[in-house]
Amino acid sequence: MQKWEVAEGNLASPRGFRGAAAAAGIKKTHGELDLALLVCDAPAATAAGVFTTNLVAAAPVLVSRQNLVESRGRCRAILVNAGNANACTGRQGLHTARESARAVARLLSLPPAQVLVASTGVIGVPLDLGLVTTPLPGLVGKLSIENASAVARAIMTTDTFPKSCVLRSEVGGKFVHLAGIAKGSGMIHPHLATLLSFLTTDALIGPRTLHNLLRAAADASFNRVTVDGDTSTNDTVLAWASGAAAAGVRPGNASWAWFLEGLTQLCQSLAKMIARDGEGAKKLIVVEVQGARKHSDAERVARAVANSPLVKTAVAGSDANWGRILCAAGYSGAVFDPNKVDIHVNGLLLCRDGVDAGFDEAAARQELDGKEVVLRLDLHQGSASARIWTCDLTHGYITINASYRT
Amino acid sequence: MQKWEVAEGNLASPRGFRGAAAAAGIKKTHGELDLALLVCDAPAATAAGVFTTNLVAAAPVLVSRQNLVESRGRCRAILVNAGNANACTGRQGLHTARESARAVARLLSLPPAQVLVASTGVIGVPLDLGLVTTPLPGLVGKLSIENASAVARAIMTTDTFPKSCVLRSEVGGKFVHLAGIAKGSGMIHPHLATLLSFLTTDALIGPRTLHNLLRAAADASFNRVTVDGDTSTNDTVLAWASGAAAAGVRPGNASWAWFLEGLTQLCQSLAKMIARDGEGAKKLIVVEVQGARKHSDAERVARAVANSPLVKTAVAGSDANWGRILCAAGYSGAVFDPNKVDIHVNGLLLCRDGVDAGFDEAAARQELDGKEVVLRLDLHQGSASARIWTCDLTHGYITINASYRT
Repeated sequence: MQKWEVAEGNLASPRGFRGAAAAAGIKKTHGELDLALLVCDAPAATAAGVFTTNLVAAAPVLVSRQNLVESRGRCRAILVNAGNANACTGRQGLHTARESARAVARLLSLPPAQVLVASTGVIGVPLDLGLVTTPLPGLVGKLSIENASAVARAIMTTDTFPKSCVLRSEVGGKFVHLAGIAKGSGMIHPHLATLLSFLTTDALIGPRTLHNLLRAAADASFNRVTVDGDTSTNDTVLAWASGAAAAGVRPGNASWAWFLEGLTQLCQSLAKMIARDGEGAKKLIVVEVQGARKHSDAERVARAVANSPLVKTAVAGSDANWGRILCAAGYSGAVFDPNKVDIHVNGLLLCRDGVDAGFDEAAARQELDGKEVVLRLDLHQGSASARIWTCDLTHGYITINASYRT
Repeated sequence: MQKWEVAEGNLASPRGFRGAAAAAGIKKTHGELDLALLVCDAPAATAAGVFTTNLVAAAPVLVSRQNLVESRGRCRAILVNAGNANACTGRQGLHTARESARAVARLLSLPPAQVLVASTGVIGVPLDLGLVTTPLPGLVGKLSIENASAVARAIMTTDTFPKSCVLRSEVGGKFVHLAGIAKGSGMIHPHLATLLSFLTTDALIGPRTLHNLLRAAADASFNRVTVDGDTSTNDTVLAWASGAAAAGVRPGNASWAWFLEGLTQLCQSLAKMIARDGEGAKKLIVVEVQGARKHSDAERVARAVANSPLVKTAVAGSDANWGRILCAAGYSGAVFDPNKVDIHVNGLLLCRDGVDAGFDEAAARQELDGKEVVLRLDLHQGSASARIWTCDLTHGYITINASYRT
């Protein structure tokens, strides 16, 4: 087994998958892609999902969660729309989500439980079932490997670019593939975000194993991204394995570590794209905490710094306001001695032992002007560390969110 | 004992107090008031304080906390500056805070422990001791009842208006007074905020009793305000009783409830001014939760809604996006049935039983266009309730905070 390497392609680069997208009129802007269908032609394809922890879960989340259980992790099609989240839509919303899945199942001659659904967009507005079902026959007719490229674009809402990544690794002279797409970009917060992500592979993996791998990879990636601290109603990450490459992945085996490494790499690439493309964001911020007494302390500090609106606006303005970083660490709940903390931006030391390190303002501004800013805190209390990805907070966030619904 | 009524006046309306302010050159803008001194001429004056819970506490917080203990709750003078928080300034910062208090003590012939200090402004920049001590003799010379009016202005940072409130109540034919000033307006979050508040009264109250009253009043007011979720390094609320009105307040006595009512009313008035004047804010948002199973659930929901950037930007844009409100309730950690929730803006029903109530968009926009917006959630699970004050999130917040330091 070789290292995973980045490759060209799309969600259907792993063998066994096809996809297509259409403009169904769900988004406000006429003619934009907003409905996508993904299918797997391998009858034994397995799927696993992780979903929002929000008590107010959208109808498609409830339906997909149930279908994964009913089908025992078997899945042959995923239908996804953008422009309407089908959340806070009550009984009618559940009906729409279930009937959408049934319509796909009828067209593809599948049991309805083998069809999953996902939605993203505005909350609290009924999703018109006709808008979803009318384009379905056309969508089925267009399913192809090539047309799967359009899916990443069809799931975008306020995202400014489609997020896609393909990896491959050689096993016994043949390539195994991992592919993924994702969308952000507001309501982004660990556990999870308004995040939809679909991951495909042609490796051969049982449904329980796939679920465990997905959980581990999501914890090291999507659950480490925060944009605004809001946890959405629709967060869904689905992993899907066709088995077409016949490369088996089993726990307690070298294949496990090999596959988890690829899946984690894939998810982290997508997670960083989500942070970089946070609503209104101009910069990716990586918060790295080291020297904590224990891991939970490192996590707390990293999350507090990454969630601080004052830190994020300071980075937006390229202002080396390290005091706000230390302040956020201070209210994180972690235990440390403020008089021992060092803070770096990229390689530049801003704060040593809790006080101003006497840095060069122009140099600091130059570091903060970059597209990727690493804020590193060393607590000098132990050896635990943690990393969180976020973005700066700009006027763009306000503009986007002050009139999102209307 | 009569009801408390709003009166004209300033911090020195309660008998026994005097104050003055000066432009010491600590703020960036030349000539702005930024240093204030308050004294109490009653030798037995008592004081109590509640301070930031941030592990990174500013030097003046450490010094005032210590002096309150050392003096056993006796206090004769408070020195406060704006423009520099003297936070994250290490040993040197502590020296500056202590020497400032000593300089005041020398001029007024007081033990240093009877002088408290407070600071607000930029973090991590050394505070020049000379800037503080040089104007002190002039400040002492100007101390008067009238000049105490300038103190509310001198403690402002990004506040757009001074925050002040005076109450009085008739007891046995004579008035007892309660007065308070406060400043916000970023880093505002319960327990506590970048909040400085000074409260005076001429009632006669022992230091321990005053402390308990202050805690109770702060819990019902300052700890219910949130602007941006950042808990500052400098939060300080000090209550100060001269005893000059000879109206005694003791626990287990009708005077306790009477005084607590006035103190709570005073603190709530100031807290609402702080929320209304949050950085960049155009609107005061009152989040009211009722029908919760238990109080902690009501609190969680109210705080989650009040802290949601998506809810706050929607209010800024007068967008009746009730789905975001329900979404925030859903991730708050409280237990409730989303299908039973009603949401009102002011008197208008937006969401009934967790779905769109079919409201009139124009009417909703009109409600949201007001200067004060009440978002009320009824969970229909029980009888517990909670209220939190916050403000909308606008471009102004970003503008102020992207370059606050430089």
